[in-house]
Amino acid sequence: MALSLDILQERIGYRFKNEALLLRAVTHSSYANETGNPRHHLLCNERLEFLGDSVLSLITSDFLYRQFSELPEGDLTRTRAALVREEALASYARKIGLGEFLLLGKGERNSGGADKDAVIADAFEAILAAIYLDAGGVNGLDAVVAFLLPFLEEAAKQMADRLCGYHDDYKSRLQEFVQKDGGELEYRIVGESGPDHNKTFWVEVYLDSNRIGIGSGHSKKNAEQAAAHDAMKLFALKG
Amino acid sequence: MALSLDILQERIGYRFKNEALLLRAVTHSSYANETGNPRHHLLCNERLEFLGDSVLSLITSDFLYRQFSELPEGDLTRTRAALVREEALASYARKIGLGEFLLLGKGERNSGGADKDAVIADAFEAILAAIYLDAGGVNGLDAVVAFLLPFLEEAAKQMADRLCGYHDDYKSRLQEFVQKDGGELEYRIVGESGPDHNKTFWVEVYLDSNRIGIGSGHSKKNAEQAAAHDAMKLFALKG
Repeated sequence: MALSLDILQERIGYRFKNEALLLRAVTHSSYANETGNPRHHLLCNERLEFLGDSVLSLITSDFLYRQFSELPEGDLTRTRAALVREEALASYARKIGLGEFLLLGKGERNSGGADKDAVIADAFEAILAAIYLDAGGVNGLDAVVAFLLPFLEEAAKQMADRLCGYHDDYKSRLQEFVQKDGGELEYRIVGESGPDHNKTFWVEVYLDSNRIGIGSGHSKKNAEQAAAHDAMKLFALKG
Repeated sequence: MALSLDILQERIGYRFKNEALLLRAVTHSSYANETGNPRHHLLCNERLEFLGDSVLSLITSDFLYRQFSELPEGDLTRTRAALVREEALASYARKIGLGEFLLLGKGERNSGGADKDAVIADAFEAILAAIYLDAGGVNGLDAVVAFLLPFLEEAAKQMADRLCGYHDDYKSRLQEFVQKDGGELEYRIVGESGPDHNKTFWVEVYLDSNRIGIGSGHSKKNAEQAAAHDAMKLFALKG
């Protein structure tokens, strides 16, 4: 038996005015088919998934456009693809235990549908659309952003961590990485603040004159490492 | 020489707070390259196009989701693809004469770039993003909807007209069309209003139990024709 929608709404952090939307978002086509209703396609989450795909794309694009304000279009497109691919969506869905809430047909349930990437990724997109519609459509995007943005931010951060390891030398790793393409890195100190005994330095790192990262630290070296770490977020996606 | 941005804003029906955004939206990469600026990718419309692509997708999906409230996901996806393909975007762009406003490099200008589908379609997407950003991002979508929706509505209508002709028998054409796939049509009167001498009838048309169109008219026959015409909008995309 699927868990109650009350619990799901707590996990999402959004309370629906129209709970029927949320119910439809967690209803897989295999479950709706079993109802024998000739309009079963209206009872399942497939139409919501269609809409949610675009809601996801816009919020992700907006996030990347602002977050990486100097990144060329090609890199933005690659990064977006990585953040919205099925595997990534499934990982977001698992963080709220979405599988436990899904209504699945018998066959799908018995074959482990509640933990299949494709099934839970689609349901995740459907939930984005359900929030979007419930909150007022084009005027309700803020509510979806509030739910989705933390997943995107963490995914972007993890992409960097996975490549770099936790106690790694980011500058060396970045250097290795860009050398493959013959790129040239340059670190520039762009600011200092605070008293002498507790200064903060700001450093930007450029690749062939394009700014690819920024970081701060209490020494120039630490600030450079932070800037390199920031830049890694991009290159983690290109491997 | 490209036309003034004042004229473009009149045609768009939106007045920019930050005209630099609009300027960037009409700046092709070939023009920015010629400046010799190492950050030329920030001066041209490519990043805006990245964002505009998602703005376009959401507004189109929202329109189709609401307009065709009973259509299965697969048909929605096909319809969206038709409305946002390069050729369609280029046709929207030509309606506001967008080519006249573009800043192109010499080579691109001499080879007719101002009327190339790819060039003006990209610029059209960039303009959607420029409006979106200028109007406040996720809180400014309404301004983009006001500009874009008429193009989408007309394109959906033309898809039907192209297939049906103006004085055609929509019911017969629809019948022919669905017979290919072995589908079965059914017309249902779902409402009547007005006094006896000036009644309006509402008719829905179903294909294999899925509602695919609705229409009204002063006779049952006219209402059926209108419903068939409405349904043609979908099938025009499947040919």
